[in-house]
Amino acid sequence: MIIVKIGGGAGINLRGIIGDLAELKEKFIIVHGANALRDKLAEDLGQPKKVVTSVSGYSSVYSDETLIDHMMMAYAGARNKRIVELCHQHGINAVGLSGLDGKAVQGVRNKGIRVYQDGKLKVLRDYSGKPEAVNRPLFDLLLDHGYVPVVTVPIIDEQNTAINTENDDVVRVLQKALHAETVVNLIEAPGFLENRENEGSLIKRIPSAELEAREGQVDGRMKRKMLAVRKLFEHGASRVIIADGRSEHPVAEALAGKGTVIE
Amino acid sequence: MIIVKIGGGAGINLRGIIGDLAELKEKFIIVHGANALRDKLAEDLGQPKKVVTSVSGYSSVYSDETLIDHMMMAYAGARNKRIVELCHQHGINAVGLSGLDGKAVQGVRNKGIRVYQDGKLKVLRDYSGKPEAVNRPLFDLLLDHGYVPVVTVPIIDEQNTAINTENDDVVRVLQKALHAETVVNLIEAPGFLENRENEGSLIKRIPSAELEAREGQVDGRMKRKMLAVRKLFEHGASRVIIADGRSEHPVAEALAGKGTVIE
Repeated sequence: MIIVKIGGGAGINLRGIIGDLAELKEKFIIVHGANALRDKLAEDLGQPKKVVTSVSGYSSVYSDETLIDHMMMAYAGARNKRIVELCHQHGINAVGLSGLDGKAVQGVRNKGIRVYQDGKLKVLRDYSGKPEAVNRPLFDLLLDHGYVPVVTVPIIDEQNTAINTENDDVVRVLQKALHAETVVNLIEAPGFLENRENEGSLIKRIPSAELEAREGQVDGRMKRKMLAVRKLFEHGASRVIIADGRSEHPVAEALAGKGTVIE
Repeated sequence: MIIVKIGGGAGINLRGIIGDLAELKEKFIIVHGANALRDKLAEDLGQPKKVVTSVSGYSSVYSDETLIDHMMMAYAGARNKRIVELCHQHGINAVGLSGLDGKAVQGVRNKGIRVYQDGKLKVLRDYSGKPEAVNRPLFDLLLDHGYVPVVTVPIIDEQNTAINTENDDVVRVLQKALHAETVVNLIEAPGFLENRENEGSLIKRIPSAELEAREGQVDGRMKRKMLAVRKLFEHGASRVIIADGRSEHPVAEALAGKGTVIE
């Protein structure tokens, strides 16, 4: 079983990815983002996303009801259905699933973000959280009958409310539940880079045992990405490939070892 | 088996409908629209829908790629996922499906609309068509395992392309394939009206044998609606109820005989 995560950037070569997947012998599922589409939609609607800064200095997107609506439109709507359409055009019998559908991906809502507002300490609660479990029987039912799940956010929380979460975390719970050996993560870069500004600085191999040490050397979004990869190995993945989703054959090249191979 | 069609108007009482469905003993599936949401989205994006007039004088929405994107966002995205969320909050194990997912609803694309443009006869081809079949095994698979399909447009054509279609036609192919005896159609009116301007002019009962004669007495959208109902009886429906989706208990009241009952 392979999990193919398709990034939500505007430069991702969807047609190339789905064409490659149609040639794949192994079973696979797709998890995808849509951040470029969501940000464009929010901007075009004049309702850009809000960012809040916690008392401890971390910035995060404030997931209010409007943001969840935009996610439903961009992720579960346009991007998911265009990917499903493209799959059928390549002979892949795809079924799109948000985490809400059949409670495919279940999470726990965040307790709130501690912020200062007008000089007072407040707890801002939004519609965001962490995935904890998947509806394994639903995935098995679909996979056993030849369907390929195409999964995206939002997910469902313990009160059956739609919440925002990181797709990296969705991949984590799916990998654990479905015992996927390989995770291919297609992004808008050649792989993990030593220097974010230089696409020539690709890190070609990382032994999985070195991931924790590497986390100490990077920060921000990269640190979070490294941690997400490390968790995949903790739950039994044997290979994670971070590769370029913009190339002509993103999946074929990734599986041939192009990109950052962690094993 | 009951098919509950939920209209896409802004005044539809979704919470009341889903609350009623949670109490239902029979199996059911949901088909829903989202026209108010789609029109608002298109307007907010400054890309209102285009209407073309054929040489024979019929007006129709021109379903270009942008319109299909808006449908994916409004119907398969926000509206579908909010209904699925509401279902889970009421203990209904809903799975949202556009017609694309697992080729749930398959259609044939229209050959084109003959129009005059700059004085010349042209054939405008758009992304619209008619549903012809459903993926019955997929519906059975879900229903047999306790899932409630929540179905909406777009559907998939013979070239695996997403196309727009009328939800009334989606109901027709589903009713035929799933042998649903009852169809409940929840709209923003008390039912079929003698006079569209007067909500007090409700037609309470129509014997199904009288439908064809009635079609001769009405025109436009109403004629199309009557024809759609007649086709349901041709394919084995025994009761069609057109009822008010704005009331406190839309489904319970419809099944108790409020609205226009055709049988």
